[in-house]
Parts: sequence; C-alpha cells; structure tokens
Amino acid sequence: MDDQELMRRAVELARLSLGETSPNPNVGAVIAAPDGTVVGEGRTAPAGGPHAEVRALEQAGERARGATAYVTLEPCNHTGRTGPCTQALIRAGVTRVVAGVRDPNPVAAGGVEALRAAGLAVEIGTVLPDEARDAMAGWLTAVTRGTPYVIWKFAATLDGRSAAADGTSKWITSPEAREDVHRLRAGVDAIIAGGGTVLADDPQLTVRLPDRRARPLRVVVEGSRSTPGGSKVLDDSAPTWVVTGEGGRVALQPMLHELYRRGVRTALLEGGPTLAGAFLAEGLVDRVVAYLAPKLLGAGPAALGAAGISTISEALTFDVVDLARIGPDVRLTATVKGV
Amino acid sequence: MDDQELMRRAVELARLSLGETSPNPNVGAVIAAPDGTVVGEGRTAPAGGPHAEVRALEQAGERARGATAYVTLEPCNHTGRTGPCTQALIRAGVTRVVAGVRDPNPVAAGGVEALRAAGLAVEIGTVLPDEARDAMAGWLTAVTRGTPYVIWKFAATLDGRSAAADGTSKWITSPEAREDVHRLRAGVDAIIAGGGTVLADDPQLTVRLPDRRARPLRVVVEGSRSTPGGSKVLDDSAPTWVVTGEGGRVALQPMLHELYRRGVRTALLEGGPTLAGAFLAEGLVDRVVAYLAPKLLGAGPAALGAAGISTISEALTFDVVDLARIGPDVRLTATVKGV
Repeated sequence: MDDQELMRRAVELARLSLGETSPNPNVGAVIAAPDGTVVGEGRTAPAGGPHAEVRALEQAGERARGATAYVTLEPCNHTGRTGPCTQALIRAGVTRVVAGVRDPNPVAAGGVEALRAAGLAVEIGTVLPDEARDAMAGWLTAVTRGTPYVIWKFAATLDGRSAAADGTSKWITSPEAREDVHRLRAGVDAIIAGGGTVLADDPQLTVRLPDRRARPLRVVVEGSRSTPGGSKVLDDSAPTWVVTGEGGRVALQPMLHELYRRGVRTALLEGGPTLAGAFLAEGLVDRVVAYLAPKLLGAGPAALGAAGISTISEALTFDVVDLARIGPDVRLTATVKGV
Repeated sequence: MDDQELMRRAVELARLSLGETSPNPNVGAVIAAPDGTVVGEGRTAPAGGPHAEVRALEQAGERARGATAYVTLEPCNHTGRTGPCTQALIRAGVTRVVAGVRDPNPVAAGGVEALRAAGLAVEIGTVLPDEARDAMAGWLTAVTRGTPYVIWKFAATLDGRSAAADGTSKWITSPEAREDVHRLRAGVDAIIAGGGTVLADDPQLTVRLPDRRARPLRVVVEGSRSTPGGSKVLDDSAPTWVVTGEGGRVALQPMLHELYRRGVRTALLEGGPTLAGAFLAEGLVDRVVAYLAPKLLGAGPAALGAAGISTISEALTFDVVDLARIGPDVRLTATVKGV
C-alpha cells in the first residue's frame, strides 16, 4: 500500500473509535514496513488505556524498526495516564512519521519537534489531512473551543413536520433510520433532550445496538416543569444529568462548558423543536443530521421552533457533506458553513 | 452493442423528447444491423411530425433490411396524422422488433400482432421494460387514466419552510436548482400555479434555458381574487389558461379532464401550499420533486398547506426514486407508493 492507502486505513481506525475515547481524541495509527506492508494497527482505547500509536507498536513488535508510522493526529508529547507516544515511537525504531493534523491541545503538542530532534523524518498535513480532520472533527472543534461539538439530529416528513396534527409521531421514519440513530448515539459522549420531549415521549435516550456497547451521558434540559420520577431517562441504564435553570430557562453556553469539564467532547442534540431553536439561535450547533421520510402531512408541529430568524437573508446556512438513503428514508448531513 | 445497450439508447432518446410530443407519446427507436451496429436512431417529433420508428428507418435506409428495431413502446397500428409504424417497419424489411411496453391506447394498439402476422419476430416487455416505462411514465399514466400525470414541485428549507417569517423567499434555493426547475418545466405540457402565488410572486411560469425552446401551457387556478391584467403569467411568451371556479373554488378533477382534452399529458404543479394541499388531499399528485436547501428558518410559511391529514397513519407516503445534489441543494424525487 502507498502513503494515501495507509493513511486512509488510519482514518478508518480513527472513525471506529468515535464515541469511545473522550476526553482523549479518537486517533487511528498504522505501522508499515518500507515496502508498504502493514505490520501494526491501533486505535485509541477508552480513556486511561493505551493510545493508538502504542497499540500499533505492540502489534508490530520488532518489525517497527525502520518502519513508517501513519497517525491521524500529531503524536502526543506529554505524560498523562500513559507515557508520551513520541518516546514510544523513537524507542521502537520507527524512522518516519506521517501525521494528519496538528494537536490543538497545548499540553500534548510539540510531538513533531520532539520526533525531529530524535532524527525521525516527519510529515504533517501532507497526506489526506482533510479526511483525518473530518474523522476527528468533533474532538478537534471541542478542544479548540472548550465546549462540546454539537450535532443536532431530527426526523421529519418532506414538508418539515415532526408529528401529525393530532400529535402522533410513531413512527415518522423507518426501523432502518431508527437503528441508524442508535449508531449516531454510539458515536457521541452525551445525548441532550429538552424537558418537554422527555415529558411528551418518555424516551430512554440510550444506545440499543446488538453489536455495540456505549453509555453516553443523558442530559435533560428542564423547562418550567420538572422531570417525573418514573421517566425512562432516569433509569440506571446510563448516567443522567438533569439541568434546571433559573425560572425555567437554562443558560446553554454555561451548560456546554460544564459538559466539557465533565469530559464530553461530542454531544447529540435530539430535540424538541424549542430546544433546537434555542441552540441554533445561539450558534451552538456544529452539524445537522436530518432523517427525512418521503411522507407529507400538510399539518402538525414543525421540526424546528423559533430560532430568532425573521427574514430570508438571515437563514442559517449549512454545507451538505453527506447524502444517503437509509431504508426508505433519506439522511442528510450538513455542517455549519465555513467551519 | 447488445440488446440491452441498444434498448438503453432507445430509452435515452425517449427521454430527450419529454415535453415535446404530447398528445403523442415520447418514444425512442434504434435500428441495428444483426452484428449490433446502429444504423438508425429516432425519437418522436412534435405532434403531426413523424414517429420515432419512421425517423429511425429514414436514417437507416437500405440498411434496415434484415435489421432489428428497438422501440420503447409497441409500434402503433393506426393511421393518425402519420401512417402506421407497423407498416413502415414491414416495408423497410426489418425482421425483428424488440419493444419496451404495450401501448395502453386501444386505438393505436395491435402493433405486435400485426408485425407477427407479417412474419417478424417480436419481443415485448423482455428488454429493460421498467426503464422504458419510467421514461414514458407520464404519458402512460395519463393515457390509461384520462387525466394528466401531475408532478408537484416545491422548494423548501430543511425544516420545510417556503419563506421566512416576513414572507421573503428570494432565494431559498441556488441558481443551479432554479435552472434545474426550468429543465423540469421543459419536460411537461402544462405548468399549474394557484392564484395566490401569482398575486404574491408574479411569476412568469415559462421555460428559460439557453439550449431549449419549450412553451408549456400556463394554468392559473384562481381563488376568490382574479389575476391582475398586468401579471407576467398573462404575457405573450406562452399560452395561458386562467381557471375560475364557483365561489372562488375550482373543481380540480374536472379541470384535469379538460387539460387532458386539450392535449396535456404531463403537468407541473408549482404551488402555492394551499393548492398543493388540495391536489394531495384529492390524490391527484403522481410524483413529488422537492428541492431542499441546506438552510434552517425555524419560522415562516410551510411548503405544504392542509391536505386533510390529521394523524400519522394517514400520512401520504411516497417512494424515493432519485436523490441528487444540485449545486449546494438536494433534489429528492418520489412517486406515489405502489404506482
């Protein structure tokens, strides 16, 4: 395999760790012999466990000597719960490192310089940097900003309704789309829902997948009414944080800072329309995932409530980054323009 | 080329004639020598002109002798403004005919039997019949039912708004999407809009493309207020029919029958939300083309008004048949489930 293929594999590994590594980044690493043969692969283990480079080096063993390491993120240069990856690479005899993007975390940075000082050839940002950045977008954005990367997910009909006129909404989307939502949940550290949605739908907000265990923090943003004791969101299947505000109004920005402090790097906002409108009005949404069912209702509540926009030139505008058919439905993924 | 490739080319030719042939079908025809070499191609000329088979035979000349004809529709067997295509194929010495779908029009049917009686080998419905049917879906549906095939086109934000809270809507979609709408218009015989939309937006409802001349009939479905004399829709760039109903309410089904009588086989319904709701409530929409802009508004008029649906189980459900990115926007095409 060539440089691009090897880095593409590292990016794949990084994606596989989405939702498992916070507060650490989801990194992928591949060690390859000079002829392009893969001798080791690794991805970040849950926090406290070894980093991607260390796992890949373990697998490579003696074959790491004279090899090249492909890593999505600049190898860390600090001793946290694990030793610095730079030292592990040097000790193993790796002679060349190809890294995707710089580490924005000042505590961990300096890896490139340390490797070069030890005589290794280092290339950074030259091989598939955009793919590496995209795979770690949540973590990179969160660390740079100090608040979690927020993904707003909603399901609606083609005419933008989240329920029919009588309030019924089970089910707007297909079983395939609902399973896809569980995969989306498995890739984040927290799931945020409004108190109104919890009252109306009594959702469990957990990951239910046959092949994946994940317990993102459940966050209920309470309005004026408190969450009833028997709500499913309060069961013991995952941790829950109920946020209550002054006079029924939660300040979102401080809430996000607190989530970051608790180790949350990526969060999935699941509604309802009022809370989504508040997040969007404050510019707190980084990515939108819309599940659109090819259905029409012509009446019923809108998927999105007031977001402080009154004229067309103020419309929130996104870039479509992915478009997929999920069973009979369509999934559209978009990111904030220019981010 | 083999049978499939030759029929695929005939289907392509049929699509190129969309919007040009009504009340005749948009047919494509290819004549190929026994070794698969194309010796003639044709598609239906505007009404009164030659049919696809005749054009293809003219191009083939003497090379039609012993050749195979690939036609999307069963060759006609009646003398309308042109002679029967069956006779033209027999006279030219074609020995095999591969046809896509049966002609549902009883007056023109019987082509297969006439060809077989003359000793030609005829296959129908065996090579890409679904593709042939799809290319002529509008005409086939209209002729079978006696009313035009209706395509509802709308543009909306991801949250289903057709304008912002203050009524502004220029432009929700991109220039690329708006040009695509002109291509959609060029493929139909009539463009239908409600009186409210004409009053509010003063649209011209014409085809404006550098490479295509087409003048579909403009149909204004008037509400309680009449269309002002200076409206663009009344200019002389295309014919216009203003339909007025009793007490401000137009009976849609009789209107569609009258459009069919006037030769309209396919019609594009362009809104507004109230008229679209009425069409959908009466089950008069065959296909939906949604142009979705990756924008969010959170307020403003919905793209679809009341369609007589009050609970989720009554939602109008469609099959997504095409999903495409048009510039920054998304175009979703869906047909009525099971049609």
